[in-house]
Amino acid sequence: MNTEQAPFESVAIVGLGLIGGSLALATRERWPSIRVTGVDSNEVIAHVRGSGAIDRSAQTIAEAGDVELIVLAAPVQQNRALLRGLRVRRPTIVTDVGSTKQAMGEDGRTLGEPAIFVGGHPLGGGERGGFAFARPDLFEARPWILTSDTGTPDARERLSSFVSGLGARPVVMTSEAHDRVMALVSHLPQLAASALMDVVGTAAGPEGLRLAGRGLADTTRLASSPADIWRDVCQTNADAIGGALDLLIARLVDVRQELDHGSAIDELFEQAGHWRAVLMKGPE
Amino acid sequence: MNTEQAPFESVAIVGLGLIGGSLALATRERWPSIRVTGVDSNEVIAHVRGSGAIDRSAQTIAEAGDVELIVLAAPVQQNRALLRGLRVRRPTIVTDVGSTKQAMGEDGRTLGEPAIFVGGHPLGGGERGGFAFARPDLFEARPWILTSDTGTPDARERLSSFVSGLGARPVVMTSEAHDRVMALVSHLPQLAASALMDVVGTAAGPEGLRLAGRGLADTTRLASSPADIWRDVCQTNADAIGGALDLLIARLVDVRQELDHGSAIDELFEQAGHWRAVLMKGPE
Repeated sequence: MNTEQAPFESVAIVGLGLIGGSLALATRERWPSIRVTGVDSNEVIAHVRGSGAIDRSAQTIAEAGDVELIVLAAPVQQNRALLRGLRVRRPTIVTDVGSTKQAMGEDGRTLGEPAIFVGGHPLGGGERGGFAFARPDLFEARPWILTSDTGTPDARERLSSFVSGLGARPVVMTSEAHDRVMALVSHLPQLAASALMDVVGTAAGPEGLRLAGRGLADTTRLASSPADIWRDVCQTNADAIGGALDLLIARLVDVRQELDHGSAIDELFEQAGHWRAVLMKGPE
Repeated sequence: MNTEQAPFESVAIVGLGLIGGSLALATRERWPSIRVTGVDSNEVIAHVRGSGAIDRSAQTIAEAGDVELIVLAAPVQQNRALLRGLRVRRPTIVTDVGSTKQAMGEDGRTLGEPAIFVGGHPLGGGERGGFAFARPDLFEARPWILTSDTGTPDARERLSSFVSGLGARPVVMTSEAHDRVMALVSHLPQLAASALMDVVGTAAGPEGLRLAGRGLADTTRLASSPADIWRDVCQTNADAIGGALDLLIARLVDVRQELDHGSAIDELFEQAGHWRAVLMKGPE
């Protein structure tokens, strides 16, 4: 596999956090020939330099010069601002790794030639952000969504070869379908975990939390997620997240009214147990 | 420590699931001199026999004969029925290990001499129930709540020595305080995880779940909990759980209205992150 030609000769990664950093490490490992430019603040670059993950560094995309692929790996709203300000002189594929795709896709369609935007979202991530937690196998066997309503068939194909080479499993869907399903399987669990931790902590206090078991700890693991990422996700996917929250609120209202009804509680646990088993079976 | 006298000479454990089974194993390990009688169905007893966790078996409490301590380790409503039907001939301390304490405590106060009821709740548990998952160190360093409004000072003291010997940390509080704090730190997370798994699975379907990451898996781990235990918990702590659900529903309604307001989302994550850090700091 390592004898295949690299789909790009040069890539600029804008934002070297967990995802951008892992992308740099994975690219280096898979195609040592690709010239990797890291774009981030001096402070981050200083930290990344020693890892050998990048060949060159720059403070801005313009400073990075001509590259064949630009990957925007900052929080969503920052990616959007970067995309809107982007000017390239040579044919360049631009993608991103953000958790919402419709807003980004709309900005991408306004991008002038010779740049082509293809929306992307690697589903991996980890408990903690930052380059310190980056690793080359972060995307291994995980889906990497590419949006079918952005870019051209050729651009999507090249990007698909690239992410396959990094070990990911490319999945093509519309930006709208992406945002709808992510509102359910990712954004809703995040907000539910944060809201749960907030109300339980506030009402039980430190003394009460000392009586909590592993159940609360697992259920609220996501509550330590960084606000800056999620502020942008909520803003750029408010409709779908609102719909998902409505479903959860309605279900909790049902449960609240049926606490005394054994059969309703049985049904909740039966349904939840069924879907939990489907979830844990995982990809084929 | 092994030279101390055992606080009881004989104990009957009614229900040899995860908790009852672990209690038998822990007792055997700590005080081999205590005669342990396991009370459960023939099927369960056949499975437990080979483990060496019990000395004797019985199908009913009456059949177990005279013992100094009876531990009710079935689901809460079954424990209540057993308690109401209990008749002993010699001084006996009766306790339970259920997740709600007020209903049980009321039944316990009607218990006739020479039996004395002291409510108990070991906070341990595990992902899966049944004797197959029982282990002698399940209670190690974990709180074991004893209710101050049940029994006598002497009975609570003997039980406290017993659970300390098993490695647990005795915590004394009223049944009402127990049920209120457990509604928050245990019962609410359970119902939230179940409701979340139900709505996400139903709305996203198997295809959508294939795009879920570790976040959803962690947040819904509790969704595979057994219905029989939780049906009873909901029925016997409906008021406190209802109040806890109201808090979560109200918070989610707030979040839903503020998805577009960056500062409100920031505040949610700041609060949740703070309480998450307090939670993970754990006991002193």
